[in-house]
Amino acid sequence: MNKPDHLKIAICQINPTVGDLKANARKIIEYYLKSVEDYSPDLVVFPECALTGYPPEDLLLKASFIKGADAALKTIAQEIGPTLAIVGTVTANGQSIFNSAVGLQGGKSVWTYSKRILPNYGVFDEQRYFSPGKETGIFKVQGVPMGISVCEDIWEDDLSLNPCAAQARKGARILINISASPFFAGKFDVRYQLLKRRVKETKVPIIYVNMAGGQDELVYDGRSMAMDADGHLRVLTKSFEEDIGLVHFDLNKGHVRSIWREKAALPLGIPEIHQALLTGTRDYVNKNKFKSVILGLSGGIDSALTAALAVEAIGKDRVIGVTMPSRFSSSETVGDAEKVAINLGIKFLKIPIHGIHRAFLKELAPAFKGMKADTTEENIQPRIRGMILMALSNKFGHLVLTTGNKSEISVGYCTLYGDTAGGFAMLKDAPKGMVYDLSRYINKLEGREIIPASTIRRVPTAELKFNQTDQDTLPPYPVLDKIIQGYVEEDLSYEQLLRRGFDAKVLQRVIQMIDRSEYKRRQSPPGIKITPKAFGRDRRMPITNKFTEWLG
Amino acid sequence: MNKPDHLKIAICQINPTVGDLKANARKIIEYYLKSVEDYSPDLVVFPECALTGYPPEDLLLKASFIKGADAALKTIAQEIGPTLAIVGTVTANGQSIFNSAVGLQGGKSVWTYSKRILPNYGVFDEQRYFSPGKETGIFKVQGVPMGISVCEDIWEDDLSLNPCAAQARKGARILINISASPFFAGKFDVRYQLLKRRVKETKVPIIYVNMAGGQDELVYDGRSMAMDADGHLRVLTKSFEEDIGLVHFDLNKGHVRSIWREKAALPLGIPEIHQALLTGTRDYVNKNKFKSVILGLSGGIDSALTAALAVEAIGKDRVIGVTMPSRFSSSETVGDAEKVAINLGIKFLKIPIHGIHRAFLKELAPAFKGMKADTTEENIQPRIRGMILMALSNKFGHLVLTTGNKSEISVGYCTLYGDTAGGFAMLKDAPKGMVYDLSRYINKLEGREIIPASTIRRVPTAELKFNQTDQDTLPPYPVLDKIIQGYVEEDLSYEQLLRRGFDAKVLQRVIQMIDRSEYKRRQSPPGIKITPKAFGRDRRMPITNKFTEWLG
Repeated sequence: MNKPDHLKIAICQINPTVGDLKANARKIIEYYLKSVEDYSPDLVVFPECALTGYPPEDLLLKASFIKGADAALKTIAQEIGPTLAIVGTVTANGQSIFNSAVGLQGGKSVWTYSKRILPNYGVFDEQRYFSPGKETGIFKVQGVPMGISVCEDIWEDDLSLNPCAAQARKGARILINISASPFFAGKFDVRYQLLKRRVKETKVPIIYVNMAGGQDELVYDGRSMAMDADGHLRVLTKSFEEDIGLVHFDLNKGHVRSIWREKAALPLGIPEIHQALLTGTRDYVNKNKFKSVILGLSGGIDSALTAALAVEAIGKDRVIGVTMPSRFSSSETVGDAEKVAINLGIKFLKIPIHGIHRAFLKELAPAFKGMKADTTEENIQPRIRGMILMALSNKFGHLVLTTGNKSEISVGYCTLYGDTAGGFAMLKDAPKGMVYDLSRYINKLEGREIIPASTIRRVPTAELKFNQTDQDTLPPYPVLDKIIQGYVEEDLSYEQLLRRGFDAKVLQRVIQMIDRSEYKRRQSPPGIKITPKAFGRDRRMPITNKFTEWLG
Repeated sequence: MNKPDHLKIAICQINPTVGDLKANARKIIEYYLKSVEDYSPDLVVFPECALTGYPPEDLLLKASFIKGADAALKTIAQEIGPTLAIVGTVTANGQSIFNSAVGLQGGKSVWTYSKRILPNYGVFDEQRYFSPGKETGIFKVQGVPMGISVCEDIWEDDLSLNPCAAQARKGARILINISASPFFAGKFDVRYQLLKRRVKETKVPIIYVNMAGGQDELVYDGRSMAMDADGHLRVLTKSFEEDIGLVHFDLNKGHVRSIWREKAALPLGIPEIHQALLTGTRDYVNKNKFKSVILGLSGGIDSALTAALAVEAIGKDRVIGVTMPSRFSSSETVGDAEKVAINLGIKFLKIPIHGIHRAFLKELAPAFKGMKADTTEENIQPRIRGMILMALSNKFGHLVLTTGNKSEISVGYCTLYGDTAGGFAMLKDAPKGMVYDLSRYINKLEGREIIPASTIRRVPTAELKFNQTDQDTLPPYPVLDKIIQGYVEEDLSYEQLLRRGFDAKVLQRVIQMIDRSEYKRRQSPPGIKITPKAFGRDRRMPITNKFTEWLG
């Protein structure tokens, strides 16, 4: 046999569903067969945990799940011909389980490499489940030595621990990393810079195979890459969606390149956040088999944006808007709510709440005798709206989308079981400023007014009483958003934030509001992580918590 | 100086509050001074994380929190005289933080030992925060070598890794372990057997110092122990509450004993679960500064028990019961609700819900046109009740207690934002069978009928429509509870459960109900862990999850 002068490697960037072992196995087989048929590659690579979905969380504690994954892998192996496939899955050895890359060829498993560096920070809990692997991860394709690693392995900056660095030292001519790397805005650049550093250190090209799609609070943004030993990006697959990328590796020059096209990269910032929100919503809705979603349209910007994104994610026939005016709703906001529905072409319901509100106040009157009206009476209104949406959900099977943004959720400017009532909180991790940016972006993208200009212009108000605006209670959103970024996302202390120039009183009040709203967040629906630190699995705070930054 | 013939060691089993560094420091100083004054001990020992509370969760990611703990430890050190104190706290070294035992003496820190074995399973996330320690943990008191370890250290069965075993080999004459070991029913015996094994292996007496009190979902049951080298329990401190225990160590015989009393051990089973529920509730209410609690009294056993426990935990003047009858409420259940309130001597409100229910149905009628009545209309009722309780909470500052039990919460037999609306779910981890046992126990303990006999006798019903009973929809509770125990607490597979003799169809239906209710649990309030596996931090399941046990 003549030595080949190049190798072709297919990147199968798929979107599996957690736990759906049979369907994921079918998808892997389909992608393998399609890659082989279309491109005759020498190697086909799938992402980390492609077979199980990621993260499987405590499913990993079930022996039946591990057994099921093993059986599904055998099913895949039976369909694998002479072209080597690398599949991310979970493997077991006695009581230990591993996050593994398995090489399949000629109907059977030919090698296993298990992740050595197990992330246990942020949203990751891998040391809860996995034991670290011990294999070196070098394998051969057409006689060419390559290194395989799994996600976090390649992030390790201590090169004495980094298995990729060791593989390069041992003669691997390509490093392949399979990942399930969750999105946050800017993460792509972090990954890109990381690969740059690694190829600079190792002088070996890297092929980075990421997952696509949404899983509860996480979105995988795809964007698999092949980077040359000189640090040039040669292959970039699609953002957020499934894709096949083909990498050409020149054995004489030792270079990788794309052999048929350069894909257009998605611009960073708002465009990628936009796509993340669409992907996360679409997959939550579809993977959980909801036919439709419903949401309250208040005439405000949060609900208008949520509706617009929902329509883009799953289609206008699957989205229903409901306006639920009270006696505090202005004709402008009610009009704007309807305008959004018309702009989007969605079904629109109007269900007034004053009658129900009156009924509540009447029954509560004896208990409230002698007490002044306060936020109690105000909060009943969003709770009635939440109940109406839930009733429509129960009756018709719609998923209720909540519309709160990260700024509100941070400081607890929301009513528990009211505007927080619902199954999915699309904008949970989007601060108010980003809500405006996304709204303007969507209008621009569509070339027409989807989110009404009047909505974008209006001073934000919860409309729970007359002449109320958010800023009666909260600092202006640009200030609030910056404090949240520092305190929540960067874990900065009060002292550090003071040095950023915030007013001490404002700062103390905002921090206190954030700390004291933990109980509300604990009962909030999941939403899509788009910043470096989202509420949910990412940030685990006690409810009972007496720590006060400025008191020590 | 003459060599002493015995040493006295004071166990300070305290109940700190997470994050309350200054108050916890004051408590530690008070307990130290009191121990020294009352008993002139040679050593005073506090539990794991006594200064920070446990678990501090992501507070540990805040540099200000670590700095605050350091400052508070210095404050304590200043008050510590010639008698050595061992205090559990968090220490830092560069970027690494440790779960440490610090020896304080003569106004300063004299040594530090940091936990080596970091638990990262169940409710524990220690590898998210801590680096493992490297010290051997041997220190001297009056020239006598002793070993110090922190919680999980002593649980390690691989004696080549277990630091206590190493300390014994190196000549430690007493092993001291400081813990923050959360309660579940039967855990005491697990700990006791563990200490038995360790003294048998090491031939060295062990002093085990545990924390007391509640923190969100966890309760620390105290019951600190001193066990002789022959495996006899010589000192046992109080259950669940703060206490000081004094251990006498005979240097000639090498024995430990209590020098003034044997404490009466709390019987295991229902009596200890009863105390756990009281402690968890009392501490959640008081540490979060709620003056009072409110709950719906349905006439059923869950709410009756919750009310009875609340009264026992915080006093009858701080508990308010509300009956919220609908047209489906029988005179018997309304009567029983009132009877519970009378038996307990609590304030009792009656707020009917039919008027509000009618108002809802009226406004929803156009949207529901042509649809048959179903569970939608039923679910509106518990949601109205939830809103009424929340309105009373908002107006008067009461904490709302939810009353659902673990059996219901497992299978989703509850209405989100309805009966799950509230701040604390006392019976969240108590299966229905245990609810009955606790009710009978309380009646017996009080020597009178607190929970009405008619309530205990009545077939369980949600009373959301006429002639409804829970068992129209669910298998009988004794069967359901056993399936939940196997599937949730023991993580058994469908196959394993089949082998326990359950009917395949019933089993499949219950498993499916449990799996599909994850989204409800994700939005449920915290409750007290009393079984080996509770919902919450203890069991982390994806919502989007297509794994089906019997399909693989």
